[in-house]
Amino acid sequence: MKKAEIITQRVRNLRLWMFERGLSAYIFPSTDPHMGEYVPDYWKAREWISGFNGSAGTAVVTMTRAALWTDSRYWLAAEEQLAGTPFEVIRCGRNVATPEELIAWIRLVETESYGIGYDAWVNTVSFALDLRWITPNASMVFQGKYNPCDDLWEDRPPLSTAPIEIQPLEFAGQPAEEKLQVIRHEIRRHDADAILITQLDEIAWTLNLRGTDVHCTPVFVAYLLVLPDKAVLYTNLEKVTAEVATYLRQLGVATRNYEEVRSFYADYLQDTELRVQLDPDVLCEALYPDSSQGHVDAPSPIPALRAIKNETEIRSLRNAMLKDGVAMVKFLKWLELPSAMSSQRHSTLPLTEMSVDAKLTALRAQQPLFRGLSFDTIAGYGAHGAIVHYEATPETDIPLEPHGFLLLDSGAQYQDGTTDITRTIALGPLTDEQRRDYTLVLKGHIRLATAVFPDGTSGTQLDVLARYAMWQEHKNYGHGTGHGVGSYLSVHEGPHQFRMNWMPAPLHAGMTITIEPGIYIAGSHGVRIENTMLIVPDDTPSALSREGKLPSGQNGSWLRLEPLTLCPIDTTPIIRELMAPDEIAYLNNYHVRVREALLPLLDDEADRQWLLQATAEY
Amino acid sequence: MKKAEIITQRVRNLRLWMFERGLSAYIFPSTDPHMGEYVPDYWKAREWISGFNGSAGTAVVTMTRAALWTDSRYWLAAEEQLAGTPFEVIRCGRNVATPEELIAWIRLVETESYGIGYDAWVNTVSFALDLRWITPNASMVFQGKYNPCDDLWEDRPPLSTAPIEIQPLEFAGQPAEEKLQVIRHEIRRHDADAILITQLDEIAWTLNLRGTDVHCTPVFVAYLLVLPDKAVLYTNLEKVTAEVATYLRQLGVATRNYEEVRSFYADYLQDTELRVQLDPDVLCEALYPDSSQGHVDAPSPIPALRAIKNETEIRSLRNAMLKDGVAMVKFLKWLELPSAMSSQRHSTLPLTEMSVDAKLTALRAQQPLFRGLSFDTIAGYGAHGAIVHYEATPETDIPLEPHGFLLLDSGAQYQDGTTDITRTIALGPLTDEQRRDYTLVLKGHIRLATAVFPDGTSGTQLDVLARYAMWQEHKNYGHGTGHGVGSYLSVHEGPHQFRMNWMPAPLHAGMTITIEPGIYIAGSHGVRIENTMLIVPDDTPSALSREGKLPSGQNGSWLRLEPLTLCPIDTTPIIRELMAPDEIAYLNNYHVRVREALLPLLDDEADRQWLLQATAEY
Repeated sequence: MKKAEIITQRVRNLRLWMFERGLSAYIFPSTDPHMGEYVPDYWKAREWISGFNGSAGTAVVTMTRAALWTDSRYWLAAEEQLAGTPFEVIRCGRNVATPEELIAWIRLVETESYGIGYDAWVNTVSFALDLRWITPNASMVFQGKYNPCDDLWEDRPPLSTAPIEIQPLEFAGQPAEEKLQVIRHEIRRHDADAILITQLDEIAWTLNLRGTDVHCTPVFVAYLLVLPDKAVLYTNLEKVTAEVATYLRQLGVATRNYEEVRSFYADYLQDTELRVQLDPDVLCEALYPDSSQGHVDAPSPIPALRAIKNETEIRSLRNAMLKDGVAMVKFLKWLELPSAMSSQRHSTLPLTEMSVDAKLTALRAQQPLFRGLSFDTIAGYGAHGAIVHYEATPETDIPLEPHGFLLLDSGAQYQDGTTDITRTIALGPLTDEQRRDYTLVLKGHIRLATAVFPDGTSGTQLDVLARYAMWQEHKNYGHGTGHGVGSYLSVHEGPHQFRMNWMPAPLHAGMTITIEPGIYIAGSHGVRIENTMLIVPDDTPSALSREGKLPSGQNGSWLRLEPLTLCPIDTTPIIRELMAPDEIAYLNNYHVRVREALLPLLDDEADRQWLLQATAEY
Repeated sequence: MKKAEIITQRVRNLRLWMFERGLSAYIFPSTDPHMGEYVPDYWKAREWISGFNGSAGTAVVTMTRAALWTDSRYWLAAEEQLAGTPFEVIRCGRNVATPEELIAWIRLVETESYGIGYDAWVNTVSFALDLRWITPNASMVFQGKYNPCDDLWEDRPPLSTAPIEIQPLEFAGQPAEEKLQVIRHEIRRHDADAILITQLDEIAWTLNLRGTDVHCTPVFVAYLLVLPDKAVLYTNLEKVTAEVATYLRQLGVATRNYEEVRSFYADYLQDTELRVQLDPDVLCEALYPDSSQGHVDAPSPIPALRAIKNETEIRSLRNAMLKDGVAMVKFLKWLELPSAMSSQRHSTLPLTEMSVDAKLTALRAQQPLFRGLSFDTIAGYGAHGAIVHYEATPETDIPLEPHGFLLLDSGAQYQDGTTDITRTIALGPLTDEQRRDYTLVLKGHIRLATAVFPDGTSGTQLDVLARYAMWQEHKNYGHGTGHGVGSYLSVHEGPHQFRMNWMPAPLHAGMTITIEPGIYIAGSHGVRIENTMLIVPDDTPSALSREGKLPSGQNGSWLRLEPLTLCPIDTTPIIRELMAPDEIAYLNNYHVRVREALLPLLDDEADRQWLLQATAEY
């Protein structure tokens, strides 16, 4: 049976199931109970029902219609994947399918609509409240208790039973006991005595544990209830090795089966004076207590705590960056081998987007403590470089040619740190526009990288520095300029960002953040240059003044950005006349830093020569 | 009787009055019923009770204590002015005396506090709601109906009876009929049929009328109720001349006495289907209808409409800028006369901050259509330049000396436009730090002035461009970077600003906005350089590319800033090595523009020579 027919049959079965339960519409979001960036296969119900496998999208099935909302990254892919199925693609913005949009559409297509079903385990409290809030009078009844996957999904992938691992203190830096105490202290701000932690990277960070349950992110599926005198970890008990069991016992953390979280409130809070802190924006509705007594709604304190890396984490991350730099240098040198691009050598096996990804991954895998990629590599050659979230597949993969740009955004999970780097590499001759775009992106990268700013500035207040140069030429990019990076955790970590949209989270010393401006010319090329940076105190005024004394009468502490990523930036595409002297100086200083850090780590003389040349004074 | 004794006696009388009414505290804000920037003397109750005359401050009197909250601009002045009175100064931030702060203090000082009095005519609905909202249980009862001024304020200044004037269409550009129609259309967004306009500059803008009731702002005291088929202007009828009466009649605007606004709801809305739009953030509580039926809370549409100037307003404003530039040039040339600073010439009458203000004002007053200043001149010499809102008084006035900086922030109301300009003028030798600060401020000014940005960018997203250079040296300023400027209206006009704090109001072509970064070194000097700019479409990429063609594949419209202010910027303090080539080019281009605009308007050969020299290529 063809894919489209399978989907059509599933929708037919679903409608029968809905009819039996009095539901006239059912909503499938792209989220799971833990509201993380990557969803384990077990919860990919939206993909199961529709066949659409993009990371963002909401499907709705009614008795007569079926639709899938997705954002511009996936408009074309969704049209292809849903061809022949009952689903129509609805193009929407980055806030995929707001409750308003869903309700408006359901009202449009179902003249008599009453029961709207959704799974309270994979939708947040806020979403469920919004659904009800925006529904005029009582024309719709929302049912969160039914889940068609339990009844209809054959061959549903199981949840992982892979063992949980301890992240040693030599990398984590702060004992879990201490983190639990700090969390208990922080929730007192909201008069809370307990907190239910539902986000997997928050649990991993708190307990200094890691797992392999989620794609590209070393976390494990669990809930963590922190009480005043103990904590309870809800997870598949098969995952708890003897070593982890001992560790948890010493920490005062009891373990219970994952499913038992259903009754966390009844079991530990119901008849106590304790108030538990919950975050309606990330908590699934199924776990939200009925009564407003005994709980307080507030965001988790963990993102702000976790964002400021301790000295051990920073030292470890620097080490991971050295290894990642070595892998990148070996890769870039390999890519630049005259023979690598020659059609002779590759006449039977040309270099393609997927093969360079494989090569780079193999080089990273040779490094100590490598644990996997931190996200799916974006290797976009030529016009593919203009697709911001491009991931080469066997269907789209194209051979590299000795001209134009290869945009390569990649990163790894090492046990001592998470990396994220983008380089745009000239494979041969470039057009004037390509060189100009490269130079504008580099200027933006450097302008932001050289900023000095008061402690507590927000990323929104700084973002324009990366855009100023390209805006002069009416060029721009539609994504944020930077994000935090975890310590052997999520490669995208909040709460701070560089972004035009208002992000009030203040920047402080010890935070990691990427700088990654870009220019994307559809059908032609893409440029992005990304380093991961560390926010550090700026003890002496740097750029303009070299007198080494602080001006009098100034208060407050000042911050600057220090590059953690260690890898040459291709200088061949630069249009020198567009560069300011201080921008060239920054580039040269960065290359000195890269050379001094990586040269002692390279054994192969050819790699060493390549690095010397790639970091030569520009 | 001395001032402090008079205040003490007033507080004593107030407490007796409070006791008779069962009030244990009374709150005096700095606002009036119209919530504008300047308050007519009639409503200066906080100054009457406390003696403190700063523009921002809240006084509270209890049976045993009295306090005045004010922000850092006024901490020292308040201490001086309140010495010997029952008032203590409480230092607070720019959100002077939030309801939380007031309630916390009252609870602290009055162990048994029940009745809290305030005047519902001079406090907003939001403030009154907040007072009640944040008060735990019912320990306090708030009374908005009592006003001690009516009973106790002897010699209270009357409200103005000065005539209202028509702002001719040759300056206003858009007929009031049309504005009323647009307002009626805009309020439909909120399903409103009527709107009560309470802010004086909004009324003046809507009706193309002006007045002289408020310091530095050409408005008149009134309310305007816009109904679907007519409008009602509540104002002192003595102010309505025969000409204005005819004009209003033709507009379909009825006039009623100012006090009758009390019953606006009963008179026009009570028994109708009409819903009136009100803004709780600026509407005084006394005018807020009791029932939630029949009104809708939403901000006025007028600021966003008014912010985008029409072609006539822009043409008029350019003319006003020419006149202001001529006055400034004559002033600067006069100030620079060798004899002006000579101790001989001024041995009996030295130049002082107040005398240069008087000279500049006199030169402006010679210009056609001059109507007054747009704000009190800030003429700060030396250390006074570091006081951001300094206004020289006979007590603080100091003579100018032939060294250091004079910071001069000034502006005028001409019938064809409002101006706002700051120049920092070297009166002789400067220290290295003074020159460096001047250069950093100029660099910031130019970096923001040269920005190209997408339509709809907010001022918060651009603000850092003015700070980047000085942040490198750990210098900063505590005020916003720019504000809108009215068309013969308020010199500070919203909704858009350049400001670090989040200001979501989008920037569009046709808006005016100032650029005014500064550096202030307490006890030493201040630097600020301000031009008023016009936001215009950027039709061709400008700064880096001179090829004159738009890059392909780019959408949306782009904006840039064009200086409206025409006056040389002192180049003598600049440290050339700190300036980038494009910054010097901007300065030279600006000076060419100033020279070409003003030279034909100068008759005096000495003025012409001065201008040629001041705008010579740097």
